[in-house]
Amino acid sequence: MATIRDVSKESGLSIATVSRAISNPELVSKESLKRVNQAIDKLQYRPNLTSQKFRLQRTNTIVVLVPNIANLFFASLISGIEDTAAKYGYNVLLGDTRDITSREKEFINLVETRQADGIIQLRPHHKESLLPNCNVKAVNAAGCANTPYLSVRIDNTEAAYKVVKYLLDQGHRKIGVISGLKDNPHTRDRMLGYRQALQQANIAFNDDYVIEGDFTLWSGLNAVQHFAQLKDKPTALFCMNDEMAIGAIKGLKEKGLRVPQDISVTGFDDLEVSNYSDPPLTTVRQPGVKIGEKAAELLFQMIEGTEPKLIEYILPFELIIRESTRPYLL
Amino acid sequence: MATIRDVSKESGLSIATVSRAISNPELVSKESLKRVNQAIDKLQYRPNLTSQKFRLQRTNTIVVLVPNIANLFFASLISGIEDTAAKYGYNVLLGDTRDITSREKEFINLVETRQADGIIQLRPHHKESLLPNCNVKAVNAAGCANTPYLSVRIDNTEAAYKVVKYLLDQGHRKIGVISGLKDNPHTRDRMLGYRQALQQANIAFNDDYVIEGDFTLWSGLNAVQHFAQLKDKPTALFCMNDEMAIGAIKGLKEKGLRVPQDISVTGFDDLEVSNYSDPPLTTVRQPGVKIGEKAAELLFQMIEGTEPKLIEYILPFELIIRESTRPYLL
Repeated sequence: MATIRDVSKESGLSIATVSRAISNPELVSKESLKRVNQAIDKLQYRPNLTSQKFRLQRTNTIVVLVPNIANLFFASLISGIEDTAAKYGYNVLLGDTRDITSREKEFINLVETRQADGIIQLRPHHKESLLPNCNVKAVNAAGCANTPYLSVRIDNTEAAYKVVKYLLDQGHRKIGVISGLKDNPHTRDRMLGYRQALQQANIAFNDDYVIEGDFTLWSGLNAVQHFAQLKDKPTALFCMNDEMAIGAIKGLKEKGLRVPQDISVTGFDDLEVSNYSDPPLTTVRQPGVKIGEKAAELLFQMIEGTEPKLIEYILPFELIIRESTRPYLL
Repeated sequence: MATIRDVSKESGLSIATVSRAISNPELVSKESLKRVNQAIDKLQYRPNLTSQKFRLQRTNTIVVLVPNIANLFFASLISGIEDTAAKYGYNVLLGDTRDITSREKEFINLVETRQADGIIQLRPHHKESLLPNCNVKAVNAAGCANTPYLSVRIDNTEAAYKVVKYLLDQGHRKIGVISGLKDNPHTRDRMLGYRQALQQANIAFNDDYVIEGDFTLWSGLNAVQHFAQLKDKPTALFCMNDEMAIGAIKGLKEKGLRVPQDISVTGFDDLEVSNYSDPPLTTVRQPGVKIGEKAAELLFQMIEGTEPKLIEYILPFELIIRESTRPYLL
């Protein structure tokens, strides 16, 4: 690999001039600039951007912490972040944390040691997270209420309330829940919406109707075993994401139950594949791309010195009615 | 943020000594080391690893080029890469290229300018790709035949041959294909396997039975329109990935056709969700995790100076028979 010394030799100019030509071309005569560029082209010299960027204190790179690269909802967030990054002239690198704090720490280290300028965290804030207690500019995207640093998200409680309210309006009175892990903040926010909708309809909360999943297809399938054993079975299932709803539909069919004729099922997120399930899923559409765009915009503004006006940016969601639900008929 | 100057002041030692204590602690007295460490702890000083790593010519970071972060098959590859990276002490950063050469170039630049040590490319090699014509250690994972640099993959032609042969053995004679884009090397390799199986069974290749998709759900759904218009309809569809097979099943149902009673459908990849489609998909299982592990292992060995023995590592695939296929009955 050619060095700056080689470029100096080839161009007949001092190392200082070559260096200036690369980092501050406006300070160098046109003639010198031309000779440096010719030498660079000929030798295929690549300036070491890392050390240059260190001088500038800017890498023009951000890291997105993704808790699970296999979760399809994140793909839409990431595409929104990337489109905005392209506009602002930033590269985006993704770090798969697997929701493990030690892995999160490694990626935060990269930013703290100036291999990147900031972080977007795609998951609800956990108590044990290192953010925001580190020297890193960070934005949380698609998280939950009470995030202790800048966040962009929907109102999960309101969205859960709306979808359960929809089932109630369709005449359902026995509404089961397949939740996320109990200590997950998304579970907490969405469960609150479920309880609010029941309360408003004067329906008592029934512990038997809540089963814990972990947001995977398999956990949705598995949860159905529980409901099938109940004497007084629910007529509708509110699933806290689309994967679990798709898993539940498979489980219900295996037990000979028809969706929605025998039981209605709703999801949360509106993944692309949810329109391809049989039946297509009634669900809550999170504006993934827009959340990503807004989070990135706020992060780049912070990096460039503008403090955001709000601590929380709440974007609208949408209830998508498809064929996995229908009115409860006596 | 504290600087090395602050650490020098706090510890009462020269900057040179502090610097040596950080990068070559064995050259510094125990007493000095202790004072430096105390100052670092007190000031929460973070050495700039970027410039340190530049000195070492090693960043212990690799970049994985992902052509489409929303493609579920890549998630399994990535998890294999990450597990191996953890063993070798490397960080993994993901770059979403969207299959665009200029974006690929940006990420290759990061490696060329030593922000990372090497690249794993997750897509078939295209003519316009910058790899391998750059100063970057790179491995291709899950690509195709004739990759001009180190690659780890299955034999796509053989796998396509096997699944089409399976349909032929079930008595099907009219086998439609939903392919990827015509100029995609995966399409080329898999089409070859399809043709070989037909030829062996003395069945003429029929242009009407091949429709181009683009590996998305929607393109599978859309392709069904074409087959529905044919007078002499196929009795089985070989889809070149699972997404298109899931899309095709939805399209067939919308036309009132039952899978597999009226038409058999096969996929390729074996995504997790393919076991949740209705009916569950007969498909080719690529060993995604193992491909990722092997590609990472080879890359780390190359970075550390060991040249691999082969240019191609071919791993075994598996034919997974589920419920989307059945024998053709006259």
